[in-house]
Amino acid sequence: MARKGKHSFELISGPRIVSSASFVGEKEGAGPLGAGFDAVCKDDTLGLESWEKAESRMFESAVRLALFKAGLAPEDLGCVIGGDLLNQIISAGFAARELKAPFIGLYSACSTITESMMIGGMLIEGGFAELAACASSSHFSSVERQYRYPLEMGVQPVPTAQRTVTGAGCVLLGKAGRIGENEAAKGPKKECFSHIAVTGGTMGSVEDYGITDAGNMGAAMAPAAAKTISRHFEDTGTAPKDFDLIITGDLGSFGTEMLHELMAKEGYNIEAIHEDCGKLVFGNDPKVICGGSGAGCASTVFAAHFLPKLEAGEYRRVLFLATGALLSPLSTLQGESIPAIAHAVKVEHI
Amino acid sequence: MARKGKHSFELISGPRIVSSASFVGEKEGAGPLGAGFDAVCKDDTLGLESWEKAESRMFESAVRLALFKAGLAPEDLGCVIGGDLLNQIISAGFAARELKAPFIGLYSACSTITESMMIGGMLIEGGFAELAACASSSHFSSVERQYRYPLEMGVQPVPTAQRTVTGAGCVLLGKAGRIGENEAAKGPKKECFSHIAVTGGTMGSVEDYGITDAGNMGAAMAPAAAKTISRHFEDTGTAPKDFDLIITGDLGSFGTEMLHELMAKEGYNIEAIHEDCGKLVFGNDPKVICGGSGAGCASTVFAAHFLPKLEAGEYRRVLFLATGALLSPLSTLQGESIPAIAHAVKVEHI
Repeated sequence: MARKGKHSFELISGPRIVSSASFVGEKEGAGPLGAGFDAVCKDDTLGLESWEKAESRMFESAVRLALFKAGLAPEDLGCVIGGDLLNQIISAGFAARELKAPFIGLYSACSTITESMMIGGMLIEGGFAELAACASSSHFSSVERQYRYPLEMGVQPVPTAQRTVTGAGCVLLGKAGRIGENEAAKGPKKECFSHIAVTGGTMGSVEDYGITDAGNMGAAMAPAAAKTISRHFEDTGTAPKDFDLIITGDLGSFGTEMLHELMAKEGYNIEAIHEDCGKLVFGNDPKVICGGSGAGCASTVFAAHFLPKLEAGEYRRVLFLATGALLSPLSTLQGESIPAIAHAVKVEHI
Repeated sequence: MARKGKHSFELISGPRIVSSASFVGEKEGAGPLGAGFDAVCKDDTLGLESWEKAESRMFESAVRLALFKAGLAPEDLGCVIGGDLLNQIISAGFAARELKAPFIGLYSACSTITESMMIGGMLIEGGFAELAACASSSHFSSVERQYRYPLEMGVQPVPTAQRTVTGAGCVLLGKAGRIGENEAAKGPKKECFSHIAVTGGTMGSVEDYGITDAGNMGAAMAPAAAKTISRHFEDTGTAPKDFDLIITGDLGSFGTEMLHELMAKEGYNIEAIHEDCGKLVFGNDPKVICGGSGAGCASTVFAAHFLPKLEAGEYRRVLFLATGALLSPLSTLQGESIPAIAHAVKVEHI
């Protein structure tokens, strides 16, 4: 509950990660992490009228499935905390309408899942919620036409481009020792976690190194990641050796190189313990130049790939920071550079 | 710190409202509340290249002025919590870049200021921040061209239309008894409050009564306001008589009527103690059909008009709930109805 330094915080009660769920599209399902996702949707419209509606349905489904795995239902939720990349976060907003739970809407671009887990952890530690669904989503087709070009144009990606992940991930946080009031009534718990806690983190601030190329998000976001990681080390008196893994959201291959260089300048070598969800999700697919991105990238990969390893004790302590680029197509047209942010949460095997 | 019922919460330590600031445009300054605003900007571009840049500058300026009034500076902030109506909340995001403080980006449309004060209050009560700048903004010209039509078209407003407020408001929240670490170093405090605390509130959920007319936001938002007020009464065992005032954000005159009807159906008569920021801001200007709206409406009116009355003890206990319509132009085109949300905070003279 104490604040350490200016940006970092501890969660002494260790709000638990109760369960998680991930829904992704076919291309993500065909990647090296495919077997870990809860659902691979072969038709990325889910049979609905638009990609936007499909994305919202994936958001809602991820929350419902995470609850189901824990033998819980939406009415058990203290709140849904989340967002997405679409204007006015309509994926999250319309999903929250269906879930009928208190809703805390966030916008933090691709850093949403860690902003959400940070706020969720603080609300649980503070006694304001016992169960919080932290979720974020993105959809290749809804995002591409909003941020870049109509898909029908078939524009060639630039060499630094990343592919937006189609997917929604939910991390269900619960108060230690108690995951829901009418849990017993709903039957047995399946696929729950019981050894993972969120124990602290570092709030991000907006960093901007003057990158103006919206086709090179990794470079725009790497400085924000570097700043948050360095601050976490400084505020908490830790170093890379204290972590089994540092997981970033969607820096991609170019942004990852840049992060390693920036960290080296700060005097930290994190190369051996760093993984990036964006680099992992599509593997070595040559059509995906620099890796995946999007608010659904870090949330689905963390839910499907890293949480089971934390539960198994394969990792004991990780720092998870999703990175977000806070531009809009309009701010780019108005000549603005790309500001970015990275919120971090510390997640431990207990 | 306890949760009462499913949606309401108490803030036992009573995080203080330390100061506030409001920047508005010329039309708002010419209204009946004009004398109360801190700054009336005669040129709504502030001499910058775009309305979007001007809105972001107003957001930043409101935060800086609220800090200045308390003898504080941006480096004293635990966090900036806020958002606006623009795609990817660029007003708040770019302002946060300049302020260099930890940033929690929200999207809750016109309900942003109370979502922000709710989260800020919880973070201070939980010990995660000592000073939080809660802020939101909107700008008639940036919003009109994003949500509706190019201004150059000169489209006639419909009879239920509301005018987006040009303005940014900041409410500075601080831990009781301590408003900043190096406060003494920065000289005397001016225009601070010392008798106002945020003592609780009610989290909103997304409500949708099937309204599809984006020219009638008041009707879309009234059900969300009614639900949150009713829940607050039920969860906390209170009734209209326990409040000096219930302040809504921007229902406007049509939405206000609808709220009164909906509350009557729930068995509550709030007409005598209800004020709406949207109805107040432009007075009886016949060109502004149903009143003001926008994320800057509730924040500037609450900061400039209601907080001084709370400080003076003219009101002892108010429930303040801004209301947000969670649509996007795209969701409207895709045939979706307008979901809405209202987060409430209880603010008391102490």
